[in-house]
Amino acid sequence: MYNSNRTNKPTFLDSKMGLERLVFFSDAVFAIAITLLALEIRLPVEATNLTNQNLLAVLLSIWPKYLSFIISFLVIGNFWIAHHRRFSLLTRYDNRLLVLNLLMLMSIAFIPFPTSIISENGNRTATIFYALAIIVTGLLSALLWWYTAWENRLIDKSVDKQEVRRNLLSILTTPAVFLLSIGLAFINPDLGKFSWILTAPAALMLR
Amino acid sequence: MYNSNRTNKPTFLDSKMGLERLVFFSDAVFAIAITLLALEIRLPVEATNLTNQNLLAVLLSIWPKYLSFIISFLVIGNFWIAHHRRFSLLTRYDNRLLVLNLLMLMSIAFIPFPTSIISENGNRTATIFYALAIIVTGLLSALLWWYTAWENRLIDKSVDKQEVRRNLLSILTTPAVFLLSIGLAFINPDLGKFSWILTAPAALMLR
Amino acid sequence: MYNSNRTNKPTFLDSKMGLERLVFFSDAVFAIAITLLALEIRLPVEATNLTNQNLLAVLLSIWPKYLSFIISFLVIGNFWIAHHRRFSLLTRYDNRLLVLNLLMLMSIAFIPFPTSIISENGNRTATIFYALAIIVTGLLSALLWWYTAWENRLIDKSVDKQEVRRNLLSILTTPAVFLLSIGLAFINPDLGKFSWILTAPAALMLR
Amino acid sequence: MYNSNRTNKPTFLDSKMGLERLVFFSDAVFAIAITLLALEIRLPVEATNLTNQNLLAVLLSIWPKYLSFIISFLVIGNFWIAHHRRFSLLTRYDNRLLVLNLLMLMSIAFIPFPTSIISENGNRTATIFYALAIIVTGLLSALLWWYTAWENRLIDKSVDKQEVRRNLLSILTTPAVFLLSIGLAFINPDLGKFSWILTAPAALMLR
Repeated sequence: MYNSNRTNKPTFLDSKMGLERLVFFSDAVFAIAITLLALEIRLPVEATNLTNQNLLAVLLSIWPKYLSFIISFLVIGNFWIAHHRRFSLLTRYDNRLLVLNLLMLMSIAFIPFPTSIISENGNRTATIFYALAIIVTGLLSALLWWYTAWENRLIDKSVDKQEVRRNLLSILTTPAVFLLSIGLAFINPDLGKFSWILTAPAALMLR
Repeated sequence: MYNSNRTNKPTFLDSKMGLERLVFFSDAVFAIAITLLALEIRLPVEATNLTNQNLLAVLLSIWPKYLSFIISFLVIGNFWIAHHRRFSLLTRYDNRLLVLNLLMLMSIAFIPFPTSIISENGNRTATIFYALAIIVTGLLSALLWWYTAWENRLIDKSVDKQEVRRNLLSILTTPAVFLLSIGLAFINPDLGKFSWILTAPAALMLR
Repeated sequence: MYNSNRTNKPTFLDSKMGLERLVFFSDAVFAIAITLLALEIRLPVEATNLTNQNLLAVLLSIWPKYLSFIISFLVIGNFWIAHHRRFSLLTRYDNRLLVLNLLMLMSIAFIPFPTSIISENGNRTATIFYALAIIVTGLLSALLWWYTAWENRLIDKSVDKQEVRRNLLSILTTPAVFLLSIGLAFINPDLGKFSWILTAPAALMLR
Repeated sequence: MYNSNRTNKPTFLDSKMGLERLVFFSDAVFAIAITLLALEIRLPVEATNLTNQNLLAVLLSIWPKYLSFIISFLVIGNFWIAHHRRFSLLTRYDNRLLVLNLLMLMSIAFIPFPTSIISENGNRTATIFYALAIIVTGLLSALLWWYTAWENRLIDKSVDKQEVRRNLLSILTTPAVFLLSIGLAFINPDLGKFSWILTAPAALMLR
């Protein structure tokens, strides 16, 4: 892995080890963000030495926290699977890819915050704020893929135009659904959120 | 690693690098969840500038937090060892494996929450809630192995039916014990918890 | 990877697997520190069940938290890209490199703290404290590169003196800008912070 | 990496990929524990919108938090370097190694808690509690090495008895120093802590 052609002056941008580190670093950020989601599941007050009855009531009352944990876990997991799949086609990388990838990871690392907001506030503002965070992540993912794949800039020559376009549309599904949910949230916040529950598993299965 | 047969149209599902990333991502989630457990060990109040005597009393009084940290660490560690062992038999993967693995990781990432509950409430509800979390994780692990191994779907052909079945039973030991502990918790919560202490190291040793 | 020449007495310091673990461990610390930044984005009070209007007001009022998250993400990301690039030239390592790398990682792991300070206090002290943390990280990075590269101590022989010096200057850009920002902060804290916003993306693009 | 001799019935215990995952998982736990240390550095109260003067006073007043962060970072870093070095000699592994390694990682993951205690309480109890945590980690590390290396159970045959013994003594240095510091803490807690400051960098340099 480290014994790549060292006789020539090394080029930074197409070493396999560099590509591996990039993939590794991205995976680590995905894994940390997805696991940190669970830290948002907390009891509302420092509840110690409760009776059986009271503890049960408290555990049941925080169901929006479980739900938002599950949704965000599936959403980030879905973005990870997409990243996983597309980066397996990369054959080289450049500086702009590093920067675009970093911006996309920033939007992933941000997701635990809107998750905590929506788990404590069920209203329209929270719903839209959450949807916006997912839309930004989706658009940055699409931009990343577009930069990577357009005219096979950094991916394998064997991937044809149609597959590139098909992938781009597939990525844009998630932000499209969440854009729609903003519209639905203006009618009823729960309707907006309900549309996610349907789409998250769908996205996982279909792709 | 990246120079696999690129001349043919790449298939997403059996690249070695893809399998490596999958294993890596899973390991990272396990490692983060297991290390975050320690964040639940905290003093009950912001206790600064205590006397030697008082600090000692506080440190001793939170023994249930140490105990639940140790138990959860062994439980997650045990699931990791089992995952580690089984995934070493994988030769390829598919979309459904990605999704099933993601669901199993979700249940792992959730464990710090019931751990914090049981470290602050010793009662029956907390005991059952904790046991349920482990049972769900165990069942998802069993489902994951069943999907992977049944008729050697994704594992090496050399693994025979008997070994697959033996592994499935071995995985189901943990949820079985925790199911039993729910029964025992109805008699006495401490009896339920005591049954875990016996089984966790046993599971680690036996397998 | 593990089947390196085991017949001779193994030397600790030039095994490929050792170098890989070093790079891996560093990447993990970078990834954790950069993702933990998001934990600092929190609502000022435990704000549950707010009205749409109030929640929107609160979400907008914490803009300094978003901004400091973005700046610190770009700063750590920038240090990671630089580390990534330089360590790809390493061909061996020694004890001192391990220690110097550890000290540099310590300064990276520290960054979430000044980030939280500056997100809650916009004044001169916070600005200077943040700038000092980045300057220390930058100087440790420069020291690490100097130790690694001087007279090709641990890097590939093909890298010439000029490139080593050019890299050293490039690393020192970041602490230089933040040193300047301390001066500007004495005139006006916001002017000091404004200078970072300009430099962070610049550093990412130029290098 | 995955195409190891799959024709024979796979054995779980000497696959290279298994050893890699073990090393990887351990590194991830070390990296997370060492980076989480920084989360303990917090202002005593939610201090927002302080004056320049007040913020400076607060930032200076929490110097014990910086110090305990630095000490724990060096201590965990030191354990990581030792683990890194010794595991590079492993040629195979078995179930007991997995369990012993897990117990050692548990003691590493625990270290942020005594670090937070000692950063908020400078007294004898805190000093001894911290020292005990390091002693346990050191003894588990020594046990791990003893199990691995005794009669070359799991390490390369070329490593001779003398090197194994020398390594064992080197590991035991850290718990020995912290045992001594407990004695010194009974005279004066600061004297006990002072002895660590001297030994931590020494251990890093000498080994």
